[in-house]
Amino acid sequence: MVGTTPPEALDDRTPVAPLPEGVHPAWLPASALRPVGSRRVRVVGDGPVVATVRGEVEAAVAEHGGTLVDLGPADLELVCAPDDGEEDPESFVVARDASTTTVRAVAGNGLLYGFHHVVRQGESAFEGTLELQRHAPRQPVRMLDHWDNAAVHPVMGQVERGYAGGSIFYDDGVVREDLSRARSYARLLGSIGINRVGLNNVNVHRPEALLLTERLPDVVRLAEVFRPHGIKVHLSVSFAAPVTLGGLPTADPLDPAVGEWWARTTAAVYAAIPDFGGYVVKADSEGQPGPFAYGRDHADGANVLARALAPFGGTVFWRAFVYNHRQDWRDRSTDRARAAHDNFAPLDGKFDPNVVVQVKAGPMDFQAREPISPVIAAMPRTRLAVELQVTQEYTGQQKHVCHLVPQWSEMLGFPLWGEGEPTVADVAGGRASAPAGGVVAVSNVGDDRFWTGHPLAQANLFGFGRLTWDDRIAPEDVLDEWIGLTFADPGVGKALHELMDGSWLTYERYTAPLGVGFMVSPARHHYGPDVDGYEYSSWGTYHFADRDGVGVDRTRATGTGYTGQYPAPWRDLYESTETCPDELLLFFHHVPYEHVLHSGTTVIQHIYDTHFAGREEVERMVATWSALEGRVPEDVFGRVTELLAEQLRCATEWRDQVNTYFRRKSGVPDARGRRIY
Amino acid sequence: MVGTTPPEALDDRTPVAPLPEGVHPAWLPASALRPVGSRRVRVVGDGPVVATVRGEVEAAVAEHGGTLVDLGPADLELVCAPDDGEEDPESFVVARDASTTTVRAVAGNGLLYGFHHVVRQGESAFEGTLELQRHAPRQPVRMLDHWDNAAVHPVMGQVERGYAGGSIFYDDGVVREDLSRARSYARLLGSIGINRVGLNNVNVHRPEALLLTERLPDVVRLAEVFRPHGIKVHLSVSFAAPVTLGGLPTADPLDPAVGEWWARTTAAVYAAIPDFGGYVVKADSEGQPGPFAYGRDHADGANVLARALAPFGGTVFWRAFVYNHRQDWRDRSTDRARAAHDNFAPLDGKFDPNVVVQVKAGPMDFQAREPISPVIAAMPRTRLAVELQVTQEYTGQQKHVCHLVPQWSEMLGFPLWGEGEPTVADVAGGRASAPAGGVVAVSNVGDDRFWTGHPLAQANLFGFGRLTWDDRIAPEDVLDEWIGLTFADPGVGKALHELMDGSWLTYERYTAPLGVGFMVSPARHHYGPDVDGYEYSSWGTYHFADRDGVGVDRTRATGTGYTGQYPAPWRDLYESTETCPDELLLFFHHVPYEHVLHSGTTVIQHIYDTHFAGREEVERMVATWSALEGRVPEDVFGRVTELLAEQLRCATEWRDQVNTYFRRKSGVPDARGRRIY
Repeated sequence: MVGTTPPEALDDRTPVAPLPEGVHPAWLPASALRPVGSRRVRVVGDGPVVATVRGEVEAAVAEHGGTLVDLGPADLELVCAPDDGEEDPESFVVARDASTTTVRAVAGNGLLYGFHHVVRQGESAFEGTLELQRHAPRQPVRMLDHWDNAAVHPVMGQVERGYAGGSIFYDDGVVREDLSRARSYARLLGSIGINRVGLNNVNVHRPEALLLTERLPDVVRLAEVFRPHGIKVHLSVSFAAPVTLGGLPTADPLDPAVGEWWARTTAAVYAAIPDFGGYVVKADSEGQPGPFAYGRDHADGANVLARALAPFGGTVFWRAFVYNHRQDWRDRSTDRARAAHDNFAPLDGKFDPNVVVQVKAGPMDFQAREPISPVIAAMPRTRLAVELQVTQEYTGQQKHVCHLVPQWSEMLGFPLWGEGEPTVADVAGGRASAPAGGVVAVSNVGDDRFWTGHPLAQANLFGFGRLTWDDRIAPEDVLDEWIGLTFADPGVGKALHELMDGSWLTYERYTAPLGVGFMVSPARHHYGPDVDGYEYSSWGTYHFADRDGVGVDRTRATGTGYTGQYPAPWRDLYESTETCPDELLLFFHHVPYEHVLHSGTTVIQHIYDTHFAGREEVERMVATWSALEGRVPEDVFGRVTELLAEQLRCATEWRDQVNTYFRRKSGVPDARGRRIY
Repeated sequence: MVGTTPPEALDDRTPVAPLPEGVHPAWLPASALRPVGSRRVRVVGDGPVVATVRGEVEAAVAEHGGTLVDLGPADLELVCAPDDGEEDPESFVVARDASTTTVRAVAGNGLLYGFHHVVRQGESAFEGTLELQRHAPRQPVRMLDHWDNAAVHPVMGQVERGYAGGSIFYDDGVVREDLSRARSYARLLGSIGINRVGLNNVNVHRPEALLLTERLPDVVRLAEVFRPHGIKVHLSVSFAAPVTLGGLPTADPLDPAVGEWWARTTAAVYAAIPDFGGYVVKADSEGQPGPFAYGRDHADGANVLARALAPFGGTVFWRAFVYNHRQDWRDRSTDRARAAHDNFAPLDGKFDPNVVVQVKAGPMDFQAREPISPVIAAMPRTRLAVELQVTQEYTGQQKHVCHLVPQWSEMLGFPLWGEGEPTVADVAGGRASAPAGGVVAVSNVGDDRFWTGHPLAQANLFGFGRLTWDDRIAPEDVLDEWIGLTFADPGVGKALHELMDGSWLTYERYTAPLGVGFMVSPARHHYGPDVDGYEYSSWGTYHFADRDGVGVDRTRATGTGYTGQYPAPWRDLYESTETCPDELLLFFHHVPYEHVLHSGTTVIQHIYDTHFAGREEVERMVATWSALEGRVPEDVFGRVTELLAEQLRCATEWRDQVNTYFRRKSGVPDARGRRIY
């Protein structure tokens, strides 16, 4: 456990060090760097991130026969020149005259993003001419959280909700000796514009709690890994840390000794890591400690941390995922969907300027289909971050192809006050009444050789980065970029689009219907179907199916009143089955099985039809993929082939269990006479 | 890892060594030995088990002021005198003249059992006179299997289906250094007549597999612990051992090299443990290897082990628990209940004389209510052991009071060919056509300080021993014996009978109805309700509830044909809803919710009524127990009080989930208008 690494040891740790043996290069294989690496390139500027860009160029020209030029003609100029401080340090401009493509930025991050912009353009970056274009991120905060445990948790394993092996950061309770995977990962994140990383699980157990204090030198080493890629690190901390680490009798946020403990502890962190990003906190949620224990509210709780961070420019991301996870299923009035709004909306305006309230995009928990959380429109004077889930907890656990970029695109583009009004991304990106909070997601990466378990799940990580930079890029264009970088054979694009573009909707079709959610197996950690799996649980996740109908009445008129948490027009649109969109019908309404959807079919027939269709689509995915044999690397082909077989098995199980369940319960036969067991 | 222990080390290991600190004495507290220990007692005879009796007497008189006398008048004479070998060495005679109670036996086991007979009689053993009475066990084999893993299994823990802590035999992959708990346990088992113990889980993992070979010295130590109590030890072995331990290319039972390997290995075991009992095998079951892999049948498999054991008088217990655990729930024709009969009945007469086919008492898996397995009547030329489950896997996991002795009594007394015909116990105890196989159960003991987690679950262990000795003792008399030994205050008997006598039927009432079984939670290892928990699984455990009815059609006329596996009269009685007993109706028939039971109520109303009643009975149990405060030891009172609170919570959950499930599905309201959610 040493502190900072002596400089000479950094020699073999350049930011573009080769990938560890056997690890897949994701979207940065050597071929992706060929257009740049085969040319004359000039890099101008200083600082650790510019050094990374220079290192990228050095490695690329060494591989592909180009040159790094100081003087004389260049095909590509990458220039970092500070200005008077007005310009966004993450922005860049790009232009091209007949002979030279030029990227200019005022800081290292901007240059890095400009460089990767050129890499994504490939050969076309060096063709024709281009008027000066300015690129800047829509979101100033583009963050990935890691739910990595330092030690293997007896129930949750090492990475909570991780489907790609163990942690690339930790081994056996401490930060790994060998951080080469983490370095390669930081490079991948930098290339897609991620600028913050949360280093540990928001459920903070003892080994991770110590990262804040006695294991701080471990965090220093991780900060060194991320810094050259323009990425700040955050720690998830336990609200009870003043007691558990500090030995104080209380963690009451209004107790002066508690404030002093946080201030002192935070100052020590910044002394070791001057560019430390700040904290992430899950408080009063699913058993984690929080301010409620002391009769305080979440603003009191967040602000005590914010005050400790403020002198150093740090930020606290305070999660709004607060609900009663010990709900009695017999109680039809309590509604988990209401919880975040009930808890947080009244606190609008009470949070310090360096608090970001981090809100899950939907009101429940990352289902394949949910409405947008009403909290996002309800806190005009609060910095809000929107939280997505790249790790596929409820969307196939990286055993299923489920390309989520279209879902995120739809969510980020949702107009919170109706057509033409500001969107989710607009609020996250900052308003006059409150600065930006950004977009955050839980990563899907582990020590698996393909990084993400399912090789095609890499596209979700890539796409998350790209959408946080600009959510208005069309999802299919993002996928085009990913395919172009990842696969050497340009002919695979069509098949991959066929396979991936609609895979989220396919997944939705064969799983829980019409927005009702869950129906997953508790015994298998949410993988695979179990229609009643959470029906009689304490988790607030019910579908209320009986012999007459199904769905959750969340209306003001007869239900939990949840629709009233939305502003117009949504509060009225969701309130009525006449206007509620089909895909969210069962989220908002309990309806008879014979209720006719806008699509013209009944609810029960829709359930049958979509489940047969979804499973058939997976069958076609298998065929589409099998035609790619020999056109994609053998190991990728093999892994995806295996996983598609599992997806087909699991989709069949979903189809049959859901159809049989509703057939038995409703008594309504399939209008098309297909086999239901 | 030493072999046999040097004799001098045995000094502090007498069979009646004091209990380890803090461990509950179960049914042998000092007070239980007072009637004997306060008198003049003579012990005559030799051998290790007689030495145990002498040790018991020495300890008792030292505690209670009596004397161990060689000559002169005695109040109790315990005499072991060998005869010509005709008499059952486990039998004893007892008689009393005006001054002396005499117990005579021809071997140590008989004397030990006679001694404990006197202990159970208490003061009344020394009152009045008694004509000579002969006592002999109904079952020559009275065996407990331990599903202990040597190391902690990542899913199943250390004791598979164990609800009383870790193993008293193993720690960290090997046999414990300190075997004092095992010694106290052996003494308890000897006192209730158990004469064989299976030392390890039938699911044999690597650490336990090694007990057969390189860790044999560990087994020697355990055999030394059990020998003074007249108990032989068995090992569970893996059918694949010739491959995994022996390095052979096959475990084919007909391959001569395989036979030789078993012969050689077994000879080595007997060289170390001359009174070794033999093997226990779970083959071709739930993933365990077996003869099917080589195209052989179970007789081939069992006989290769039997031939290795025969020269030494050893026995192989071969479990008949063979079924397809990867069944497709969509397949309505496959019936797990049929499996044991399908697999084993055709093999009748093919097993070697030292093979015992061990058959679960019911055809499924230790549910609160099942019919008797048809295998027991179907193999006249095969030695059969009947397997019960003392560990409460499906009967409350030792968190619920569920006194199982009445269930076992009913099962053992079941007349296999109708009233007045031989019973299950008769077949297990031996017939003209095949000698006895005995009665076997999985133990409920662990390193918990009360041995069994729930202190009242000790009565199940005690009662199992007593019923294997004589299944015709009334269950309430067995409970009387246990209460009399265990509790110093004779006034607690009435309350304990109220609490325990009917607790099995109470448990049945609030769980799965009318013999349908399961409905338990897969996520919580079969604890607590989940009506559909196993409905869409591969385990063959379905209830087929739809909006019209519930139950499994196992008739010959329209169902799986399972009823045809029974002899008359049961094959016809079970076939018709007219004659099928109510409590097994849903095991044999799929009926509408409005079907009227013999009791006069409909199936659906029966479900509601029993679930309300069962939960109310638990409420009364709580009250009954609370009145015992101060009359039972404080620690026992505290533990039982805690567990009754959990039982009440869980019974409430059962009531509400089962009632709500069927209310939603059937649409039929409760005739008595009680609250269903």
